[in-house]
Amino acid sequence: MSTPRPIEPLGHAVPSTVPTHWYNLAADLPEPTPPHLHPGTKEPLTPDDLAPLFPMALIEQEVTTERYVEIPQTVREIYSTWRPSPLVRAHRLERALGTKARIYYKYEGVSPVGSHKPNTAVAQAYYNALEGTTKLTTETGAGQWGASLSFAAALLGLTCEVWQVRASFDAKPYRRFQMETYGSVCHPSPSELTESGRAMLAADPDTTGSLGMAISEAVEAAAKDPKAHYALGSVLNHVMLHQSVIGQEVLEQIVEAGEEQVDVAFGCAGGGSNLAGLTFPLIGKNLREGTTTRVVACEPAACPSLTQGEYRYDHGDVAGLTPLLKMHTLGKDFVPPAIHAGGLRYHGMAPMVSHALNLGLLEATAVDQDTAFAGGVEFARAEGIIPAPESTHAVAAAIAFARTAESDGRSVLIGLSGNGVLDLPAYGAYV
Amino acid sequence: MSTPRPIEPLGHAVPSTVPTHWYNLAADLPEPTPPHLHPGTKEPLTPDDLAPLFPMALIEQEVTTERYVEIPQTVREIYSTWRPSPLVRAHRLERALGTKARIYYKYEGVSPVGSHKPNTAVAQAYYNALEGTTKLTTETGAGQWGASLSFAAALLGLTCEVWQVRASFDAKPYRRFQMETYGSVCHPSPSELTESGRAMLAADPDTTGSLGMAISEAVEAAAKDPKAHYALGSVLNHVMLHQSVIGQEVLEQIVEAGEEQVDVAFGCAGGGSNLAGLTFPLIGKNLREGTTTRVVACEPAACPSLTQGEYRYDHGDVAGLTPLLKMHTLGKDFVPPAIHAGGLRYHGMAPMVSHALNLGLLEATAVDQDTAFAGGVEFARAEGIIPAPESTHAVAAAIAFARTAESDGRSVLIGLSGNGVLDLPAYGAYV
Repeated sequence: MSTPRPIEPLGHAVPSTVPTHWYNLAADLPEPTPPHLHPGTKEPLTPDDLAPLFPMALIEQEVTTERYVEIPQTVREIYSTWRPSPLVRAHRLERALGTKARIYYKYEGVSPVGSHKPNTAVAQAYYNALEGTTKLTTETGAGQWGASLSFAAALLGLTCEVWQVRASFDAKPYRRFQMETYGSVCHPSPSELTESGRAMLAADPDTTGSLGMAISEAVEAAAKDPKAHYALGSVLNHVMLHQSVIGQEVLEQIVEAGEEQVDVAFGCAGGGSNLAGLTFPLIGKNLREGTTTRVVACEPAACPSLTQGEYRYDHGDVAGLTPLLKMHTLGKDFVPPAIHAGGLRYHGMAPMVSHALNLGLLEATAVDQDTAFAGGVEFARAEGIIPAPESTHAVAAAIAFARTAESDGRSVLIGLSGNGVLDLPAYGAYV
Repeated sequence: MSTPRPIEPLGHAVPSTVPTHWYNLAADLPEPTPPHLHPGTKEPLTPDDLAPLFPMALIEQEVTTERYVEIPQTVREIYSTWRPSPLVRAHRLERALGTKARIYYKYEGVSPVGSHKPNTAVAQAYYNALEGTTKLTTETGAGQWGASLSFAAALLGLTCEVWQVRASFDAKPYRRFQMETYGSVCHPSPSELTESGRAMLAADPDTTGSLGMAISEAVEAAAKDPKAHYALGSVLNHVMLHQSVIGQEVLEQIVEAGEEQVDVAFGCAGGGSNLAGLTFPLIGKNLREGTTTRVVACEPAACPSLTQGEYRYDHGDVAGLTPLLKMHTLGKDFVPPAIHAGGLRYHGMAPMVSHALNLGLLEATAVDQDTAFAGGVEFARAEGIIPAPESTHAVAAAIAFARTAESDGRSVLIGLSGNGVLDLPAYGAYV
């Protein structure tokens, strides 16, 4: 018998609690997000500019202002193996804190790779496979995104090549093994395989790499291979769109839990995809229906793009190959210190998140690493789940809030973007 | 305000899909399981013999023949944060194999520590806390059990001291960091802290330890401290009892999935707790109601207690401190080779599992390590979940069966006892 292609839906029932559409905040914004600009001409990007890197479906999603975009059935089927992710009342944490707030956490750590990243990885792999791409390239820092894209590529029949920041490649091999188990190839970056990598090595043979350098390599590799495309795990509008399944589920689940609304939501923010996914559906409801959810973006004090960066056009990578994005940025050459929350070490912030902050639709706070880990340990000992170092920023900010009288009687949401299983050495160092 | 003790229930609703009772196969066995014997007198153990090590509630559960034992509400509340664990139809694996079998997997990897072990850890910590124990001691190999008990102890307000086989303590620190994050103290075994440890070090100063040695140390430490008790993660009857939540959920979920019964169930077997938890409720239904589920215990070829061990009384530990247990055993001094499935490296097998094999209620097969990993990788690339090395033995056996014509039209169950996130180096070595 002929084997159906992996992108074809299997046809099994998917629970109605798995969202049928992605939600797009662009439809509800009072002002549009400033467009991405061509790095050469400085004019707004055209679809043709992006065609070497992305399939047309994703290019359309990057600029659409439709409120809802239908999720393909194959993607929903894959989502259904871990979605809807649980919204859990943190009863034991409340008891430990002695708070009068009602604390909930939305837990993305149940995904096969332990974080929210597969929500967009599956969608991106799907549209690429549909349009005939056979290979995806990407960059990764600690490896969460590389592992997520590898997972999605395996399920959808694509090969995947990952450039991993050399410091992580050498020091943290677990996620590389994860990528390889899914069938991907993983290179340390900078590598000798690309022009930009060779140039970076020539400039500094001992460099341990950065996310910005790895992006340059992955983009170059995709641009030079007609059957390959590039995939980015955060920052871009279509990534924010795919992550909206998180917050859409929250809107249903919080009502089921007996609440009128989320009063205050805390989400960690690095590139912005977790924050956007968790909170854009809540912000959209504020705008459309007059709910009053407060949204707090929690970033590391060591890489404070939202609280201390400038709001201006900047490149997403070091070599300047990516489009210019209007965003809160510390500058493309900013090299963040080696904090444990590798997923938050990015010089910029998603244009949509930056724009939402500028419009006053969300607020931002910076959390230092010790405070973040203290919150993570307190959460782990009360609730049993060890949060990802990224997530601990939201955990710590929520705990601080829940200790104030202001939190009395309020519903508080923590975005638990992932678990910290592969970050246990960081906890070991802290404990 | 006074803070309620952690063992008191929080009083929140627990879904009806979380079992209310543990199921006890002893009630349905045609012959009783041979009793445990006192290591000195060789007479059947009395409750007093066990009192230095275990709380009375667990001692009663060790010998009860009641069919159902009520699960305390506090335990159900904690279970409800990850239970019922999902029963998932492995559609993509079926497609990849081109099989006409319907394959399901029961996934225990969603627990906070990523395996089935917390099902009994929470129960054991609960009964200890209820009876005034303030400290638990235990042994651990790769660390799954130590991490699970640490998790449970943290939630129930106990301290926990773990002796970890030195080879794992040195080479695989992630789970030690996990234990420490939950607040436990972890020692390499053999240690200088116990008489048995000092004796083992005197005999071989360079020993890398074994599970049998670590058991001796943890048992000794508990016996000498009136406020401390010991906890064992497998082998004993009360552990099999607590794990029955897995199979009880399967019985409900498989009917919801549209099946009349599980036709063939594959579970990995080391000490026996995963296999018993997954399949004893199914075997009980066979005995009471005439269902015809075939149960296959899948053990590593490197440690084949069920397929090659003798069925006789033996000690559970090296020093001979534990009771004599009637079991399939390779001998208490058998040192299994250093295979990756650390959780299956035990010289014996749970008395109830051994007895069930002897009665013909289940069958056993041995799987070599390469075959097991090949199955694990095939599963990961189709379903997205990387199975624990232990679980790959069941995965590989199920895949082999699903490739035969005998499987046509049958429902096949894989017990996925945990995920392989902390075992990725083993996959890295294999890939």
